Amino acid sequence: MHKSALITDFYELTMMQGYYLEHHDGRAVFDMFYRTNPFQGGYTIFTGVEELIDKLGSISFSDDDISYLDSLRMFDRSFLEYLRTYRFHGDVYTFDEGTPAFPGEPLIRVESDLMDAQLIETLLLNTVNFQTLIATKASRMVLATKGHGSIMEFGLRRAQGENGGHAASRASFIGGTVSTSNTYAGKLYGIPVSGTMAHSWIMSYPTEEEAFRKFVEIYPDNGILLIDTYDTLGSGIEAAIKIGLEQKAKGKRIGVRIDSGDLSYLTKAIRQRLDDAGLEDARICVSNDITEDIIRSLISDGAPIDSWGIGTHLVTGGSQASLNGVYKLSAKEENGSFTPCLKVSSSYEKTTNPGIKQVYRFFDRSGGALADLITLSDEVLESGKDYTFYHPFSTADQFTMRKNAYASFMPLLTKKMENGRRISPERSLKEIQETSAALLGAFDKSYKRLINPHIYKVSLSEKLRSLKTDLLVEARQKESTVRNGQDG
Amino acid sequence: MHKSALITDFYELTMMQGYYLEHHDGRAVFDMFYRTNPFQGGYTIFTGVEELIDKLGSISFSDDDISYLDSLRMFDRSFLEYLRTYRFHGDVYTFDEGTPAFPGEPLIRVESDLMDAQLIETLLLNTVNFQTLIATKASRMVLATKGHGSIMEFGLRRAQGENGGHAASRASFIGGTVSTSNTYAGKLYGIPVSGTMAHSWIMSYPTEEEAFRKFVEIYPDNGILLIDTYDTLGSGIEAAIKIGLEQKAKGKRIGVRIDSGDLSYLTKAIRQRLDDAGLEDARICVSNDITEDIIRSLISDGAPIDSWGIGTHLVTGGSQASLNGVYKLSAKEENGSFTPCLKVSSSYEKTTNPGIKQVYRFFDRSGGALADLITLSDEVLESGKDYTFYHPFSTADQFTMRKNAYASFMPLLTKKMENGRRISPERSLKEIQETSAALLGAFDKSYKRLINPHIYKVSLSEKLRSLKTDLLVEARQKESTVRNGQDG
Repeated sequence: MHKSALITDFYELTMMQGYYLEHHDGRAVFDMFYRTNPFQGGYTIFTGVEELIDKLGSISFSDDDISYLDSLRMFDRSFLEYLRTYRFHGDVYTFDEGTPAFPGEPLIRVESDLMDAQLIETLLLNTVNFQTLIATKASRMVLATKGHGSIMEFGLRRAQGENGGHAASRASFIGGTVSTSNTYAGKLYGIPVSGTMAHSWIMSYPTEEEAFRKFVEIYPDNGILLIDTYDTLGSGIEAAIKIGLEQKAKGKRIGVRIDSGDLSYLTKAIRQRLDDAGLEDARICVSNDITEDIIRSLISDGAPIDSWGIGTHLVTGGSQASLNGVYKLSAKEENGSFTPCLKVSSSYEKTTNPGIKQVYRFFDRSGGALADLITLSDEVLESGKDYTFYHPFSTADQFTMRKNAYASFMPLLTKKMENGRRISPERSLKEIQETSAALLGAFDKSYKRLINPHIYKVSLSEKLRSLKTDLLVEARQKESTVRNGQDG
Repeated sequence: MHKSALITDFYELTMMQGYYLEHHDGRAVFDMFYRTNPFQGGYTIFTGVEELIDKLGSISFSDDDISYLDSLRMFDRSFLEYLRTYRFHGDVYTFDEGTPAFPGEPLIRVESDLMDAQLIETLLLNTVNFQTLIATKASRMVLATKGHGSIMEFGLRRAQGENGGHAASRASFIGGTVSTSNTYAGKLYGIPVSGTMAHSWIMSYPTEEEAFRKFVEIYPDNGILLIDTYDTLGSGIEAAIKIGLEQKAKGKRIGVRIDSGDLSYLTKAIRQRLDDAGLEDARICVSNDITEDIIRSLISDGAPIDSWGIGTHLVTGGSQASLNGVYKLSAKEENGSFTPCLKVSSSYEKTTNPGIKQVYRFFDRSGGALADLITLSDEVLESGKDYTFYHPFSTADQFTMRKNAYASFMPLLTKKMENGRRISPERSLKEIQETSAALLGAFDKSYKRLINPHIYKVSLSEKLRSLKTDLLVEARQKESTVRNGQDG
C-alpha cells in the first residue's frame, strides 16, 4: 500500500533538497521524546509505533506527488527524480508498543542518512504523539474505575477527523477499553464493536415499550435499552422492566443505558427498581461527557455502574489535546564516526541529551519497577554491580542503585526496522493491550495516582552525564567567545 | 472514489437493520446543531460541509466491508444484500460553508428515509464538528492579531491523526490562515504551503552562518532563518544579519524566526538590531505553542511580529478539543405527512426545536447582521412587516423586529444535495475563505470579542414557538398520565 510521503511538513522537503544538492548527507541519529506527562499524571503509555513501522515501510512519492511538488517551482529536477524512487531506508529502535514511558526518555531512535531521517519527522510525531496521548487517557480512565465496570469507546462523532477517530479507537483499546463504536476501526484493527440505540430509535416508535420490544426481538442477547428519552425514572425504566421480565422468561437478560441527568442518583434508583423487579442481572450502562474526574466521583459515590460509554474526552484528550513529543538530532557522522549533538536551550530542562542512547529499566525481586537509567548505547551493564543514577538536569541530585537493591534490568529500546524493513514480528492489538497492562502493573500505585503522582526516576548514567556536561561547557565557551569577540 | 460506509457508529448499523427488517422506513428529517460556542466565544465558523457533500456522495459498502459485517454474526443476509447496493439518497440543506453560526441553529437538515438519514449521523458529525471547531479557532486567532501579521498553520506533527491534520489545515485556511506546513494538505486542497528550517539543519553545519548561507543559496527568495538554536541575541542574530546584508546586496531580503524564549522581549531587541544593520525589510516570524491569549498579549505589548507559525493549539482546539454538535430527529412521516418530533429533556435548554425548519438572518441598511430567526420551512417571510422574535427557552423574553429596523433578510439553509447527488456548485477554499471573512465582517465587533462577547440573538418565530409549546405540553401530559397510572 502506498502511503504518501507528502504527509510531512514542507520544510522537511526543502531541507531535504538542501542536503541533497549540497551532498550533505552523512548518517544521523534522531531521538523522539516528550517533556512532560499529559493530564498532570505520572506516566504515558507509549503507543502508535507498530502502525508507524507499517507506515514507514510504505511511504513513497507517487507520480502525482512529484507533479505537485514540481508545480511549486522550488524543487530541482534531479531532486524530484531522486524522490521518485525514494523509500525509507533507516534503522529504527523503539520501546515496545504499550510500554509505560516517562519524560525525557528516547522512545524512538532513528538512524539513517540525514535526508531520510529528517523527512519522516512529521509523520513519526503525528502518529506517536496522538496515539500515546489517547492510550494514556484510556489507561487513566481504566484506573479511575477501580475495576468497577468496563469502558466502551464511543468517540467517532467527536473525534478530530476520520482517522483521528480510527487512531483513537486503536490507542484507546491499547490503553484498556474493551470495545469501540467505530465500525471501521473494528474492521481495520479487529477491535470488538459495540453500541446500544439512539434516541431517534425510541422517537420513531409510538412508545418506549414498543421501541424496546422491537429491539430485543432482533437483538435478543444482552440488549441495552436507552431509557432517558422522555422520563428516565418514569416511562423509561418502567418499559425497560416490562421488557426485561419478558426477556427473563425467555432466559435472556437486558441492560439499560442512561445518557443524561444525575448519573449517581439515577443509577442507584434504577438499580433498586431493577432489583425489586427481580432483574438483578440487568446491567447499567452510563454515558454523557464522562471524564476521569466524573468516573472518580461516581465510583467514590458508590454508583452501581457496569459499563461506561465514553467518547469526547477519551478520543480527543479533552482538556489536553496533544502530547508535546519532539524529534531531535542526537548524533551525526563526521569523518566516518558519530559525533554526539546537543541542542542547548536557555531553559535547562530543554537542553537535549546527546549521543546514541539506550534506556534500562531496573526491577526489584518481585518484578516491581524501580527506576530507569538512560545510558550511551555502547555501555554494557552487568548485574551485581552498583550504579549511580544522575538527575537529568540538577547537578547535585544523584543516588546509587546498590547491587542488592535490584534483581534485574532490561533494555527498553530494541531494533524494529533495519534498512527500512520491519524486522520485529507483528503483534495483535489484544496482545499489546495485555502486555501493556502487565507492564503498568509493575509500577507502584503511587506513580499511577491520577493527580499529584510520585515522580518515577529517569536518570543519566555517569558516562552520559559526563558527555552532556562536557558538551554544555564547550557550547557555553563558544558562545562566550562569540560574545567577547562582538563586544571587543 | 469509494468512501467506506463503515465509518459510522455500530449502533447506526444495528438500528438500520432494525428499521429494514421491520419495514419501519418512512421519511424522516434530522437537524445538526450545536449547543454552546467553543472557547467561551460568541460564534462559530460553520465548516466542513463541502467535504461532507463529497463524502456522502461516495459512501458505499465494499465486498470487504460486507464480509466484515457478516463475520460479526449479527446481520441478516437480506440486509447485507441491501447494503451491497446502498448509496446515500437523501436531500441535504445546509448553511453555506464559512457562514458565522450560533448555538441552536439547524446548520444541516437531512431529509431521507429513516435508515439512510440515520446511517450518516456519525460521519456527518465527525466531519462538521471538528472542522467547525478549528475554523472557529483560526478565526479567533486572526482576530487576536488585529491585523498585525499573518498566520501560518504548522500543526501536522501535533494533530490528532493524519487526517485530523489534513482536515485541520483545510478548516484553518477557511478560518483565515494564509498557508499550511502540511504538504499533503497543500496538494489535496490547494492551500499554499510554507515552512522555514529546523534546528537540525543548523546543527548539521559547523556554524549558523554556514547553515544560513547554504540555505539562502538554494532558497534565495525571502529565506526565513531560524536564529534560536544556540544563542538568539548572540550568534543567532549576528549570523542572520551577516547573511541578510549579503542577500540585500543581491537585491534579496531575509526573515528571522524565533521558536523559544520571551517573544516580546526578543522580537523588540531583534527588530532594533535588524533596523540598526539596515535590514528594515527583514521580517520577524515567531512560533512556540502560541494561543489566542499569547497573541493578544504580544500585540498589546507592541511586539513587532510579521508572521505567526501556529501548530498545536490551532489544529487541536487546545483547551477545547471538540464541538458539541448533535444530530436529532425533528420530523417523521406518518400516514403520508410529516409529524414534528420533540426530544424532551429535564434541562430545558436541551429540549429540541421540532419540525422542518429554516433560518433567516436579518440585516440593517448598512449590511450589519441584526439577529437570526428560526422559522418553520413553510413560513413565508415578507419584507416591510414587523416580526416577533421569541427566546428559544425563556417564555417571557421576546422582542419585535420593526419593519423599519431591518433592510433585508436572507434564508441560510439552502439545498445542496438532492437524492444523494450534489446540486450546489463546488467552491474553492479561497472563495470560501473570502466569503466567510466578508460574512463575519457583517457582525458588530462586540459579538466577536474573544471572551465575554455580546450574545447574538437567535430566536423562534411565532409559529415555531407555538408548535414547540404545544408539543411540550402534550409530552408533559403524557408523562403525568403515566405517573398517575403508576401511583394509582
